[in-house]
Amino acid sequence: MSKRFLALSRVYRLLEPGPVVLLATAGKTGPNVMTMSWHCMLEFEPPLVGCVVSNRNESFARLRRSKECTLNIPTVELAAKAVAVGNSSGRATDKFAAFGLTPVPAALVAAPLVDECYAALECRVVDGRMVNAYNFFVLEVVKAWVERSVENPKFIHHRGRGEFAVDGEIIRLPSKMK
Amino acid sequence: MSKRFLALSRVYRLLEPGPVVLLATAGKTGPNVMTMSWHCMLEFEPPLVGCVVSNRNESFARLRRSKECTLNIPTVELAAKAVAVGNSSGRATDKFAAFGLTPVPAALVAAPLVDECYAALECRVVDGRMVNAYNFFVLEVVKAWVERSVENPKFIHHRGRGEFAVDGEIIRLPSKMK
Repeated sequence: MSKRFLALSRVYRLLEPGPVVLLATAGKTGPNVMTMSWHCMLEFEPPLVGCVVSNRNESFARLRRSKECTLNIPTVELAAKAVAVGNSSGRATDKFAAFGLTPVPAALVAAPLVDECYAALECRVVDGRMVNAYNFFVLEVVKAWVERSVENPKFIHHRGRGEFAVDGEIIRLPSKMK
Repeated sequence: MSKRFLALSRVYRLLEPGPVVLLATAGKTGPNVMTMSWHCMLEFEPPLVGCVVSNRNESFARLRRSKECTLNIPTVELAAKAVAVGNSSGRATDKFAAFGLTPVPAALVAAPLVDECYAALECRVVDGRMVNAYNFFVLEVVKAWVERSVENPKFIHHRGRGEFAVDGEIIRLPSKMK
């Protein structure tokens, strides 16, 4: 796929709606990827994102060690792969190879972008003070990419146990809210 | 409307998809309500929720003072009211009265439930350590309510500037993910 830069000031518009994301990390044994929904914008610009990565996950150790990751936003067409990624562990499996996902080099971090996703956000861990209490990492998005070829991406929102709400109608209301 | 208890173990299934919520607080001048999308599950049970409330908002002072709030989840039918609430300040306006929302007494907190919303979560602030750095409050959901009369609620997800994705198709995939 072919991605272009997205202004960092627009990153919140991708994450604030609460889509499922794929968190990718680099490591000695190759790239890893996990499925994650517990994330939250903390600041508009520079974009800060809080996310929970369970300390039972391989990605937790990698995030702590490398202090880098990417957040990749899949569209509904990737839902089955997102679930397959969520159902397996990077300790046992090369998930990129197993599920036909393509790691692409990022510009500013060692963690790869997931080529098949609509958007990819290069992140650095900037605050680990909440890791012990909540497995909560504060990430700064340092570079953002979106797919050129996709017009109206439909994202997925996890309702638990493999049930997802897919983006439907888009409505616009006059708002002072950023 | 007529709400029933929801088991606390199921609360994450309401918030994990990232819906717009209405955060309600109690105060000397009466109840207040704000529109909020920057929230994140932190733990399944007891349900812990992190949320960002700007220190420019009246609700910030109330949340700090009372250490209680409710998170109320509107369906798409309430989208215009959610935006109107987001466009105004509780310092200047009684937003419940101005926008035709009904404050209903909660069971365990002084903050009111928003009757018109599909779900209402009674919350206590259990960790304020991230308030100074990020305006980030950690809430414990102590009681949860959902509407009896609504079969398939469609929630809204804010994409910024008054643009919302409405829940569309629901898909189910075999998942080990909780």
